[in-house]
Amino acid sequence: MTNQTLILIQCRDAVGLVALIANTVAEHQLNIVTMREYVDEAANRFYVRIVCAGKANDNEQLAYDLTAALPQGATVTVNPPQQKRLAVLVTKEHHCLGDIIVRHFFGTLGAEVCCVAGNYNDLSTFTKRFGIPFHHVSHEGKSKEQFEAEIAHTLEPYQPDYVVLAKFMRILSPEFVARYPGRIINIHHSFLPAFIGANPYKQAHARGVKLIGATAHFVTNDLDEGPIIAQDIKPVNHSHTVKDMVRAGKEVEKSVLSKALALVIEDRVIITGNKTVVFE
Amino acid sequence: MTNQTLILIQCRDAVGLVALIANTVAEHQLNIVTMREYVDEAANRFYVRIVCAGKANDNEQLAYDLTAALPQGATVTVNPPQQKRLAVLVTKEHHCLGDIIVRHFFGTLGAEVCCVAGNYNDLSTFTKRFGIPFHHVSHEGKSKEQFEAEIAHTLEPYQPDYVVLAKFMRILSPEFVARYPGRIINIHHSFLPAFIGANPYKQAHARGVKLIGATAHFVTNDLDEGPIIAQDIKPVNHSHTVKDMVRAGKEVEKSVLSKALALVIEDRVIITGNKTVVFE
Amino acid sequence: MTNQTLILIQCRDAVGLVALIANTVAEHQLNIVTMREYVDEAANRFYVRIVCAGKANDNEQLAYDLTAALPQGATVTVNPPQQKRLAVLVTKEHHCLGDIIVRHFFGTLGAEVCCVAGNYNDLSTFTKRFGIPFHHVSHEGKSKEQFEAEIAHTLEPYQPDYVVLAKFMRILSPEFVARYPGRIINIHHSFLPAFIGANPYKQAHARGVKLIGATAHFVTNDLDEGPIIAQDIKPVNHSHTVKDMVRAGKEVEKSVLSKALALVIEDRVIITGNKTVVFE
Amino acid sequence: MTNQTLILIQCRDAVGLVALIANTVAEHQLNIVTMREYVDEAANRFYVRIVCAGKANDNEQLAYDLTAALPQGATVTVNPPQQKRLAVLVTKEHHCLGDIIVRHFFGTLGAEVCCVAGNYNDLSTFTKRFGIPFHHVSHEGKSKEQFEAEIAHTLEPYQPDYVVLAKFMRILSPEFVARYPGRIINIHHSFLPAFIGANPYKQAHARGVKLIGATAHFVTNDLDEGPIIAQDIKPVNHSHTVKDMVRAGKEVEKSVLSKALALVIEDRVIITGNKTVVFE
Repeated sequence: MTNQTLILIQCRDAVGLVALIANTVAEHQLNIVTMREYVDEAANRFYVRIVCAGKANDNEQLAYDLTAALPQGATVTVNPPQQKRLAVLVTKEHHCLGDIIVRHFFGTLGAEVCCVAGNYNDLSTFTKRFGIPFHHVSHEGKSKEQFEAEIAHTLEPYQPDYVVLAKFMRILSPEFVARYPGRIINIHHSFLPAFIGANPYKQAHARGVKLIGATAHFVTNDLDEGPIIAQDIKPVNHSHTVKDMVRAGKEVEKSVLSKALALVIEDRVIITGNKTVVFE
Repeated sequence: MTNQTLILIQCRDAVGLVALIANTVAEHQLNIVTMREYVDEAANRFYVRIVCAGKANDNEQLAYDLTAALPQGATVTVNPPQQKRLAVLVTKEHHCLGDIIVRHFFGTLGAEVCCVAGNYNDLSTFTKRFGIPFHHVSHEGKSKEQFEAEIAHTLEPYQPDYVVLAKFMRILSPEFVARYPGRIINIHHSFLPAFIGANPYKQAHARGVKLIGATAHFVTNDLDEGPIIAQDIKPVNHSHTVKDMVRAGKEVEKSVLSKALALVIEDRVIITGNKTVVFE
Repeated sequence: MTNQTLILIQCRDAVGLVALIANTVAEHQLNIVTMREYVDEAANRFYVRIVCAGKANDNEQLAYDLTAALPQGATVTVNPPQQKRLAVLVTKEHHCLGDIIVRHFFGTLGAEVCCVAGNYNDLSTFTKRFGIPFHHVSHEGKSKEQFEAEIAHTLEPYQPDYVVLAKFMRILSPEFVARYPGRIINIHHSFLPAFIGANPYKQAHARGVKLIGATAHFVTNDLDEGPIIAQDIKPVNHSHTVKDMVRAGKEVEKSVLSKALALVIEDRVIITGNKTVVFE
Repeated sequence: MTNQTLILIQCRDAVGLVALIANTVAEHQLNIVTMREYVDEAANRFYVRIVCAGKANDNEQLAYDLTAALPQGATVTVNPPQQKRLAVLVTKEHHCLGDIIVRHFFGTLGAEVCCVAGNYNDLSTFTKRFGIPFHHVSHEGKSKEQFEAEIAHTLEPYQPDYVVLAKFMRILSPEFVARYPGRIINIHHSFLPAFIGANPYKQAHARGVKLIGATAHFVTNDLDEGPIIAQDIKPVNHSHTVKDMVRAGKEVEKSVLSKALALVIEDRVIITGNKTVVFE
């Protein structure tokens, strides 16, 4: 991305949008390398992700010119921050955090883990080995309001672009979610919308399913109901105990969250209503 | 299977069952080629599927001796019917029926389609081209009781081993289901237990899922709640309309039902409570 | 596609191509609904597939104007034939042909099977049940030249858009291939480039692989070396005999060929050198 | 596994083996919980993996009695070491090592990483953060013989059960391989037997494949030709550069090696000739 210009646009659909955009981009002496575009006909919305060769002379002017050319209310982003900052919330399970931090350490995450906070202290040692600050914010003996205020206060100085719930087992209030609109990513331990709620593997085992799934999604006010970013599954069979299913599930959770983070970090995901447009 | 003996057993678990069974089999001069065994420790149940080289001299005596050796209440099957008879119920959709009948025609189904019955006549021409009887049993203007009585009366002379609901869009009553206990197989248009009920693809589209699934299961009294035999998925994305999802879904439905039928026809599936043991 | 205009373009890459194209399309009063674009930077080639809402007033004028606007040597196709004609060549195996013909019969293939020709007569009965002409062109006692001349002569009156090798087990000469440049589609019984040549399942079994694959590709002069359209796999294990692998392989072959045909029929595949650009 | 007895047997096939084994096990007061058995009819070999509830009073006596009861030349293992020791060889790539070490750290690997040795020093810091010894054994300026002697000398004090080549980019001599017969596991960067040798992703890109694969296998004298343990694939498309394919490939390599290690660590893999029997 070092010598490229990335443009993300969403707006009301209209005739000739691609021509308008392409002309504006050409006026800025940029050559379009990749263009992925989607029109939601039911919602009459237009979405596009454009990669141009070369750096724009003036990102702000380009964004201004595009916005002026497009229908009113357009959202135009030129070159979103390349090195995004992630704050990770955890409880006790390590599989997702481990994967994220190793990628961070070797520089293949495409983003920076600025801090980890946990309502238990279990993952502190691991995190600190990589020089990443770990904050233990217990929920015990606190109201949800207090607990969340502490989490928010903890994250505040890091100014994270995204908050990643890497198996964070507390439900967040709408007030907390509103602090990071469209910027909280959760990994859910099931193939949503199956097995909503607690103990999904126990439910899955009781139901005798032959596939175990996981879902990465943005968090909204409705628990487990936010826009889905990525999903995947792994086969299981009758011989899998609940424990085996949990183990298989952790592998899927890890890879699905990893995939979703890569998509978000590369600015390939646009939220639209309660869905996502993903330009893979 | 022509020169083999297949033995299926389920019973209460106990110490030494494998030795008991293996000895009884050896006394009948049979050599075990494959043995797949499963103990459900929570339910204290033992399941085994054995393939022996050579034909037993006396299937009934072998079954008798095994039953005598095993804990009381054991279910022992020696050489279940090889050429099973399938009755297929349909409405208007052809994708599952088409696949089943082509396999039947070329002798790769491993079973015989003895008849097809539909509450619409749409699939009559196709079915009859293969010399398979098609019965149009309309549900219109009839009570569920009457309609099901007609279906049952239609199937009766064919004495099917299994009734396959190949996109049969009517809900069957417990009374009808009781006629074919553990012998009705349905293909459900979703990754159960997600999207139970009607219009699953519309629901899936509205939810913005990234995978579309299908589930083949035995039919019990509770709609969509019977023992699952097989499940699979196909990836979808934001650009898929409901119609695209339906199309993708049909491909999964077809292959999942095909897989489930092969497993059942080869006697690899044992129902246990509301689950299946599948010796793939 | 009934009220849409489909445009396919490939040409040398240059600055401002998207703007040029979008402007030309807008001048024809068409609104771009979907646009998929790819630049092969190594080859300096530009590829685009555009779907516009509405019918162009004049397809030829649109193609002319686009060609005039683009770099010299551009290939522009406006609304390729919607109802493509497929000629299918077979030997004895039925699984791929069965799938194609059932889709043809129910109108979900998106194309018309105009004829089937086989060097054996085994699939004649099946084909004719659907009112499709079947031609038995034996290869026995003929030189390759003679045999292929007969095949070509047989297909000639049908003027097929594509020739589909649905398990046609004869190698075609460069002369025959040259009659249908980029229009012969083969399904290869392995995950190319593994197991090139004969008896791939025997090779796969001997090697102890854990996955069985299939590859659909365009046919060029080099056997098994043409541009790949689609590939897929199925898991196998130590207990699979060669025969089991063949059976599993047939399922993959069927679904991969089916997928490749759908992509080609919907004009989503562009051949470029020895590769394909597939706008899924 | 804490209160179980695991028995692995391979021998010449004969009539009544299961009965013989089951009786011997029963005489030792053990109850069979799971039994997976396979007969390679072509090779006339019998393989079985048995899990019994409870600890045997005397493992050696049980092994002795089983060996006495079975055909001559049987290999019988009772309770192989539970906490296996892995030595990991690396070059510069971190993705496989990172995954292995994180699992080791959190106790979910099921084995112990006793040491890491690399012909470059790149992964030293990472390894040492987890308190695992890292040995830098450069190959530069040394004959293969010298280099391998140094590696062998480095590993010697750790007495590893398995040597894992986690992207170790040097070809090992038959002499080195002979030190750890059936105990060296490699992850190969392709879907073997496609793209044998160097630069598989470059080859794959040039060939325009639609799937990228990886293969975990035991190392034998023939490069890339040893018994395959596990394989998997990931879809790719025309827009993937060689670099993108490498990135996708690393994800598959990581998960395939991880799966293969889990199978080997749980004693689910038996080598037979140039293949594996895997009791998943």
